[in-house]
Amino acid sequence: MKVSRRTLLTGAAGVVALGKTAVTQAPQTPSDPSKVRGKPSRALGQRAPSEKPLRQPRGATSSGTPHQDLYGTITPADLHFERHHGGVPEIDPKAYSLLIHGMVERPMVFTLAELRRFPAVSRVHFLECSGNFGGRTGAAEITPQQLAGLTSTSEWTGVALSTLFREVGVRPQAKWFLAEGQDAALLTRSIPVAKAYDDALIAYGQNGEAIRPEQGYPARLFLPGWEGNASVKWIRRIELSDRPFMTREETSKYTDPMADGTARIFSFLMDARSLITYPAYPVTISRGWVEINGIAWTGSGKIQRVDVSTDGGATWTPAKLQEPVLPKAHTRFRHLWNWTGGEAAIMSRAVDETGYVQPTRTDLLAARGVSTVGYHFNPITTWLVRSDGTVVFRPESWT
Amino acid sequence: MKVSRRTLLTGAAGVVALGKTAVTQAPQTPSDPSKVRGKPSRALGQRAPSEKPLRQPRGATSSGTPHQDLYGTITPADLHFERHHGGVPEIDPKAYSLLIHGMVERPMVFTLAELRRFPAVSRVHFLECSGNFGGRTGAAEITPQQLAGLTSTSEWTGVALSTLFREVGVRPQAKWFLAEGQDAALLTRSIPVAKAYDDALIAYGQNGEAIRPEQGYPARLFLPGWEGNASVKWIRRIELSDRPFMTREETSKYTDPMADGTARIFSFLMDARSLITYPAYPVTISRGWVEINGIAWTGSGKIQRVDVSTDGGATWTPAKLQEPVLPKAHTRFRHLWNWTGGEAAIMSRAVDETGYVQPTRTDLLAARGVSTVGYHFNPITTWLVRSDGTVVFRPESWT
Repeated sequence: MKVSRRTLLTGAAGVVALGKTAVTQAPQTPSDPSKVRGKPSRALGQRAPSEKPLRQPRGATSSGTPHQDLYGTITPADLHFERHHGGVPEIDPKAYSLLIHGMVERPMVFTLAELRRFPAVSRVHFLECSGNFGGRTGAAEITPQQLAGLTSTSEWTGVALSTLFREVGVRPQAKWFLAEGQDAALLTRSIPVAKAYDDALIAYGQNGEAIRPEQGYPARLFLPGWEGNASVKWIRRIELSDRPFMTREETSKYTDPMADGTARIFSFLMDARSLITYPAYPVTISRGWVEINGIAWTGSGKIQRVDVSTDGGATWTPAKLQEPVLPKAHTRFRHLWNWTGGEAAIMSRAVDETGYVQPTRTDLLAARGVSTVGYHFNPITTWLVRSDGTVVFRPESWT
Repeated sequence: MKVSRRTLLTGAAGVVALGKTAVTQAPQTPSDPSKVRGKPSRALGQRAPSEKPLRQPRGATSSGTPHQDLYGTITPADLHFERHHGGVPEIDPKAYSLLIHGMVERPMVFTLAELRRFPAVSRVHFLECSGNFGGRTGAAEITPQQLAGLTSTSEWTGVALSTLFREVGVRPQAKWFLAEGQDAALLTRSIPVAKAYDDALIAYGQNGEAIRPEQGYPARLFLPGWEGNASVKWIRRIELSDRPFMTREETSKYTDPMADGTARIFSFLMDARSLITYPAYPVTISRGWVEINGIAWTGSGKIQRVDVSTDGGATWTPAKLQEPVLPKAHTRFRHLWNWTGGEAAIMSRAVDETGYVQPTRTDLLAARGVSTVGYHFNPITTWLVRSDGTVVFRPESWT
C-alpha cells in the first residue's frame, strides 16, 4: 500500500474516533502499544496470544507438525511430531540407565550422567515416520500437516553410538544390534552395527535443551535418515548379535509388500521427498507475485535440487535452496511465481545427491510393482490453485 | 559401571523389594515405566518435569539465557534472552504496519501480510546485548547465565531489508536510516544504509515459528553481528536520511569511553567472544576425562578457532569446532581434558576469520586506553576448578 505518513496518522486517528463501540468490543491489544508500559521480563517466554500453532493428534499415539504455520527448517520442540506405540512413559532421569551387552567384551550399564560425560556431537537432522502420509481419503480440504506432519527437524545432541561401542568392545562378529525402549510397548528393532559406526547417536539433547518426553526423554537412539520407528526412544537396552532379532515390529509391521507377493523387511532408508507448505490448503492467494515455498529432505544425504512446476508437471524450474543445505535435514526451498489468475496445479520434486528423483505416485508404484504401499510413500504432492485463489490438495495424485 | 544383565535385573528387583516404604514416598515416576501405559499424544509438548531451564530476570527489563543448561547452538525460543526499555508491548498483528519514508521515491506502509509476501530468507544468527556481562561484583559463585546470558542464537526468517528499500526506491544520497520501535520507550537508532544492503532483515520468524513477543513480535529489525539494541524490535517506522539522527540511545547511552575523554558513538560491531559453559559454576566434576565445552561467536563472520587452556593461560590447544560453523552464529567448541585432580584454571579464547583474537581484560582495556568499559566487554573468562572438583568463576580476571 502506498501512503504518506499523514495518511497513516489519519488512519490511526480514525480508529480512535470509533470510540466507545470499539472499546466495548474488548480489544485484545492497546490501540497504540507505544502509549502503554509493556510487560516485564519473565523466566519463560510464551507465544503471542494470536499465534497458536498446534500439533494435530491422530488418536492417542501420534500427532503431526503444523508445517503450514512454520518458517525455515527448525521445528520448535513442542511442535515436533510424535509417534508411540504404548504412550509416552515417565522416566526418572536419575533412575535411567542404558545396558549394552551381548557380543561385547565388557557388558556395561551407563547412567544418564555417564552418557553426558562422553564427548558429544550436535547435528541438525530430520526425523520421519515411515507411515508419513494422510490424504488418501480423497478429500481435497487437507493441510500439509495432515498430509505429511510426521516429519520434523531438530538439532540433536548426544554421544556417538560408535563411542559407546568402543567402550564396551563390540566383537567383530557382531553385525546387528537390538534396540529396546522402556515404553509400555517395549519397542524393539534390529539395527545393523554398520549404522552405529556411520552416524548413529544416543541423543539426550534437542534444539539446545534436554530432549522432550515424547521424543524419548531422557535418551533415545537416533539413526539419521532412517525411518522413525528404528530410532528407538527411551532406549534402555542394546544387545549385540551376529544376526537380526526378527522382532514383531520388523516381521509383521514395518515391512513393504513386493511384486512377488513377499514383503521386504529392514527398509530403513527414507528416500527424498518434498512438500510445498505455502501456498497450500487452507490459504487463499491473490494475484501477483507469490513465493512458493516448502521443505525437502532425503535420508541419503543432501538435497541437491528441488524442481517446481506451476503447470501440473508440464514444465519444471529449479527452486532456490536456503543455505546451508545440511545432510539428512529439512531444506527450505523457494520459488517466485507470478500468479496471473486461472487454475494452476503446483508441484515440487526433490532430487538428492545420489541422483534419486522423487517420483509421482504412478512411477513409485510401478517401480515397486505393487498397487498400493503401506510405508515409504513419498510421491510428488500437487496443490490446486483455483481461479478464486483458494488452494486445495489434488487427491487423485495420491489415491 | 560394569555389570552383567543379571545384575541389572537383580537391581530392578531390589527396588521392588523396598516395598511400601518406597511407595509412600510418592515417587514421581513409575519404578518400571514399561509396565505402565504412557501418556497420550497432545497438541503441544511440554518439558520433562525434572527439566526446568529458566531465564533469569534482572529487574523488569532483561533476562538471560541459561547457557549452563543448554546443548548445541540453537536457543529454545522461550529461553532466548530479552532486553527492553519500556516493557514488552502487546501488538495486534492485524493492526501492525511498518512505514518506510524520508529520502525515498515512494513512501510506503507495509502490513504484516505484505511483509510475509515478499521473498523470504532464513539464517541462523546470534544476538547479543552490548552490555552482556555480569560478574563484576567480585563474586565467584556466578553462572554462565549470570556472566553472559544476554546472547542467544536462533534461526531467523524474514524479508531482506534491501528488498524493501528497492520497493520504496531509496535515494542515492540516503546514507542512514532511523529505526523506530512501537514499544513504550519508542526505541530509536540510526543505522547506516550500507547494513541494509549487506545482510539486514525485517524478521518475523524465529526457530521455525512466529517471533516471540519479547523478541519483537510481530516484526523486528535484525542486524546480524551488531549490538542487540540496534536491532530495533516491534519496528513501526524507518526513515531514510543523509545523516544519523543522533537519538538519545546513541548519544547518551550506548557509547564507549575513549582514552582522550570523548566517547565513541555507533560502535555497532560485536567482537569475537567465547565462554566455557561446562564445566562452570555450579557443577562439581570428578577426576578423569572431562569434555570442556562452550560457545564462541563473532559479529565479523565465522569463528576460525577457539583455543582452550587448562593451566591459566600458560599453554593453549585448539578445540574441536562443531560443524557447520555458520557466520555470526554461536559455534559449539569441545576439548577433551583429563583432570587428574588439583586446582586448574580453565579458559577459552576465540579467534575469528578476520584474525581478531579475544583479549584478556588487561589487553582489552589497554587497547582502548581506558580503565573500565560500559559496553562491548568481551574478555577471556576463567573458571577455577578447585581440588574438590567444584568450579567457580575467577572474578579477578574481569574486575
